[in-house]
This record gives sequence, structure tokens and C-alpha cells, in this order.
Amino acid sequence: MALLLHLTDIDENRWADGFRKAVPDYPVVLRSDDYAPEDVEYVFAWKPADDAFEGLVNLKAIFSLGAGVDALLQHPALPDVPIVRFVDDELTHCMSDYVISQVTMHQRLFTRYAEHQKAKVWSQLYPPASHEISVGIMGMGVLGKDAARKLKAIGFDVKGWSRTAKDIDGVTVFAGSDQFDAFLAQTDILVCLLPLTPETTGILNMETFKKLRRKLVGGPVLINAARGKHQKENDIVAALGDGTLSAASLDVFEVEPLPRTSPLWDIETCFITPHIAAISNERSGVNYFSRMLLDHRDGKPLRNVVDRDRGY
Amino acid sequence: MALLLHLTDIDENRWADGFRKAVPDYPVVLRSDDYAPEDVEYVFAWKPADDAFEGLVNLKAIFSLGAGVDALLQHPALPDVPIVRFVDDELTHCMSDYVISQVTMHQRLFTRYAEHQKAKVWSQLYPPASHEISVGIMGMGVLGKDAARKLKAIGFDVKGWSRTAKDIDGVTVFAGSDQFDAFLAQTDILVCLLPLTPETTGILNMETFKKLRRKLVGGPVLINAARGKHQKENDIVAALGDGTLSAASLDVFEVEPLPRTSPLWDIETCFITPHIAAISNERSGVNYFSRMLLDHRDGKPLRNVVDRDRGY
Repeated sequence: MALLLHLTDIDENRWADGFRKAVPDYPVVLRSDDYAPEDVEYVFAWKPADDAFEGLVNLKAIFSLGAGVDALLQHPALPDVPIVRFVDDELTHCMSDYVISQVTMHQRLFTRYAEHQKAKVWSQLYPPASHEISVGIMGMGVLGKDAARKLKAIGFDVKGWSRTAKDIDGVTVFAGSDQFDAFLAQTDILVCLLPLTPETTGILNMETFKKLRRKLVGGPVLINAARGKHQKENDIVAALGDGTLSAASLDVFEVEPLPRTSPLWDIETCFITPHIAAISNERSGVNYFSRMLLDHRDGKPLRNVVDRDRGY
Repeated sequence: MALLLHLTDIDENRWADGFRKAVPDYPVVLRSDDYAPEDVEYVFAWKPADDAFEGLVNLKAIFSLGAGVDALLQHPALPDVPIVRFVDDELTHCMSDYVISQVTMHQRLFTRYAEHQKAKVWSQLYPPASHEISVGIMGMGVLGKDAARKLKAIGFDVKGWSRTAKDIDGVTVFAGSDQFDAFLAQTDILVCLLPLTPETTGILNMETFKKLRRKLVGGPVLINAARGKHQKENDIVAALGDGTLSAASLDVFEVEPLPRTSPLWDIETCFITPHIAAISNERSGVNYFSRMLLDHRDGKPLRNVVDRDRGY
């Protein structure tokens, strides 16, 4: 029996130390250690190499460090065992922090006032109240629900859009592609927290932007904190240029790090952060997966298992 | 009997129309109308002229359009009748909108990322979670309480400072000058929502800034949405220059409009808005004061009456 850590671009030793303290009676090994592949029951993975799962004939489950498993599902030799997603309260909390900061910045007409300040202009344009603005959240999973609840608590009108119908207190949730246009038509600030699937790839495009409501001064706003491949960056550049969008906050990009040649860097109504909206916290990760491992060994079912057909 | 409107720099006719609809049986007059001063029982005032109250021998109360009455209390011929402050739910709501937008902007290290974007630098510095940051609110009246409640709802650690001790769910409230330093020592982001009184004039000064906690990356932050005379702008310029403060959001100024010669305009870590954090809403104002007038005529006591000794 063993837990194998296979984390690319991440300090594996710190995670290993954490797991060794959390599950002292269970062996934790790194790729560089001397171990028998047939002993490995669990793999804790981030960006696994193509040969990551070779020889793991007794593998029971894959633990995914990321909340999004789109990359993992593309692995060329993915074993047919359950994949457990990381559902991290701290990551959820930080994601809502990011969403609220960007939503309120745009609601309060930040770019307008920044422009006025530069020109030393004192012009009393009153921003709308939060209850006059509708925030439309794409993706009503753990992240979308938390953001919706908090945005409602501070006064926003919140709408949701999800693959399937959901019942969320005080939030109108539109479901499926049939209701996508109706959702957009009631949205002033569009927030993307979707999982990346073939259906959602490229969904943030000009056609989508053109369907948004134009109630906010200047026009609608896009906020993407999900995956870069949800967005068509050429369309965002065009939409910010022709006024289809008044502003955008982007934490993710088609190619990361965002190339220095991208026109997005220079657009004053585009607010760029380097994929830092929320990260998986080491302490939470160790707690979550060590608890999952111990429970599973005790015969309890795994939780937050990925549905491979659905893609998340 | 009559309600006299005396609103300087404001479209009095729109307010008069509102009141005439709300209290159709009670005369509403403007200064330009032909009326007998002795008929006036109520004055609805904003920046009243020095002779505003002359001849109003039967005045029962002054209704103040502003939430802050510091200027009104300086009036050279203020009659000795109750002054009713405007407590406006919509103004409260907008003020919290402003506070949340500025608090979250600074918590998420906005100035840092704006700088990086300008230089096209991709550098993953993770902002702190909201629960790691303490927001200290000066002034625990209607505005302070609403902001505190909402900041708590989205996860911040919230402290309050008030003239007198108050019991607010989940918020540690420090009271009086004795506990001011202890309050500052636990505050990363300082929010001023105080009434302007002789005691609070100039309270936002270098000595105060130096006592703030230095936990937030870069240093503490000042947000002032109360009155310009709470702040010493020379000290703010100095504190932003030497790192005592990492950033400031100012909606009010010692002189308004802020003169073009002010150095504040050019400071990239100073976020200026032209006294638009929250305004008194016309519809709310008409509802509030017409209800107050009708209730008072029915023998009910006035509410939200200013304590002249306290100054608000």
C-alpha cells in the first residue's frame, strides 16, 4: 500500500511532509523514491506525465490537485479508476473574493473614474446601486453557488446558468443551451466559473457578448476566472474596442503565461491578473485528501468523483 | 401651515413636485413663492443661506437633506427647534457598495497588478484571503453597521470604532479615544464613516496612519467616504510617499471640487472619486420626510433627531 505523489511544477516535498504527518501509518512516496509500482493504491496528481500511471496495477483512485480536471481527462493513458476532484473551501473563499472585487469595481464604474482622475476632472456621475445591476454567473457548482450567495448578501441581483436546472435560494438559474440567450439578456456583468468541457470551450465569444443586456453605463462587463480556453481572446479585444463590452477582468488566458505580444496587456479597460484568483491551498489539500484516503480504506465511498461523460 | 423647501445647488422643483404628491393636503412652498413666513412649520434644508430662518416664528422642525449635519450646525442663526437627519436606506446601500468595492480592490492588491500589467509582467503573487484581513470601520452608526454586516458576510474580519460602546453581532467595537490605538493596531484597511465633529476633525493624520497594522502586502490602506475635513491631505500625500500607507481611496476632500493643483490627483496609489460614494435619493427623501411630517402632525415624536451637543 502507498500514496504516490506526482506533482509537476510544484514542490512535492512540502506536500509529502504534510501527508506523512496526516497519515503516519500509510506510506507516502515520491517518483524519485524507491517503491514498488504494484504497492501504489492512490496517486495524487497535478499535470501527470504520459507514463505517470504505468505499472500501477493496484490503483484504486486518482486524487486531482486541481478543481478543474479538463487537462487530466486528456491524459493518453488514464486508468479506469475514480478521479476525485479537490473541493477546497479556501479556494472557494478566495474565488468569491476575486469575483466580488471585480464585480464591484465595474459596478462602481472604475474605468470611468480612473480616466477622470488622469484628466483631473471632477464630474459627479453616480454609479448604479448594486441592486440595479444583474450579475450572471455561468457555472453553478460549488464556486458559482458561493459567489452567488455572497453577491446576493451585498445586494446584487444574481442570475445563474447551469447545465442542469438547480434550485438556489433567491437566484434564478437558467439551464442548458435552450435558456442561454434568456440568461444573457438579463445579465449586465457576466462571470464565468464553468468547468472546461467540449461544450463550454470558446463560449465567451462575440456572439455571446452581443446578447448581454446593456443597462450598465458604458455597456456589459466580462469576468473570467475559470479557464483560458473558455474565451476567444480575439473576440474580447474586438468587443472592448467596439463597445460591445465596456470592460473585462481576466485571470486566465488561452496561453499562460499570457504572451508579451498579446494586445490584451495594453487595453486600459481590460484588467489582467496572472491566474491568481484562487489556488489550491496546501493545508486544505492535505486535510481533504488524507481524510478521503482514510475514509476510503475504512470502506466509505469516495466523494466529489468526476463524471467522465460530463467532463467534471 | 406650510413646508418650506430651501435647497441650495439642487433642483428644488423636482423635490417640491414629489412632496406635493406625497402630502397633497399640506402646502409645500419654495422661497420664490408668495407665502407668509409665520405659516411655515417645517423647513427642508440643504446649505441654507444665512437668512434662511428669518421670520419663521412658528417653525417646529428642520429637516436636513444631508445625512451629515456638520455644516448646518454652523449656521449663524439656527433656530432652537429639532433637526431631523435623513437616514436613507438607499444612501446606506450605496455607501456599503462603495466601501466593499474599495476594500476588496485593495485586499486583492489592485495597485500591484496594475503595475505588473503596465510592465507586461506575469508574476503570481497571491492576495490574502478576506478572512486574513481586518477592516477597521470608524463610525458605527447606520452606515458603519451596514458596511460591517456586509463585509462580515463576504468573509472579512471586521472591527469597529465608535464614540460609545456598542454591541454588534460578531464585530469587536472599540469605544472612545482610550481604545483608539488598540483599534488601529488591529486594522489593515481603515474605513472612515464618522460624523464630522470638533473631535473627529483632522483625525485621519500621519500619527493615526503610523499606528495601523502592517499585515497587508505593501502596508495599510485608508478609505474615506465621510467628510474631507476628517483628513489632513498633506499627511496622506506624505504617507503614500513614504509607505506608511500603501494606498488610499478618497471620495471627499478638504476643498471640493478637489483643486486641480492638488498633488493627490497624480498619485497612482490614490483612488479619487468626486464625492459620489452615496447620495441622498430623491424618492427616498420624499417618502422619509413626508412620512415624518404626517406622523408629527398626528402627535408622534420625530425620529433621528440630531443631538446638538454630540454634533450628529
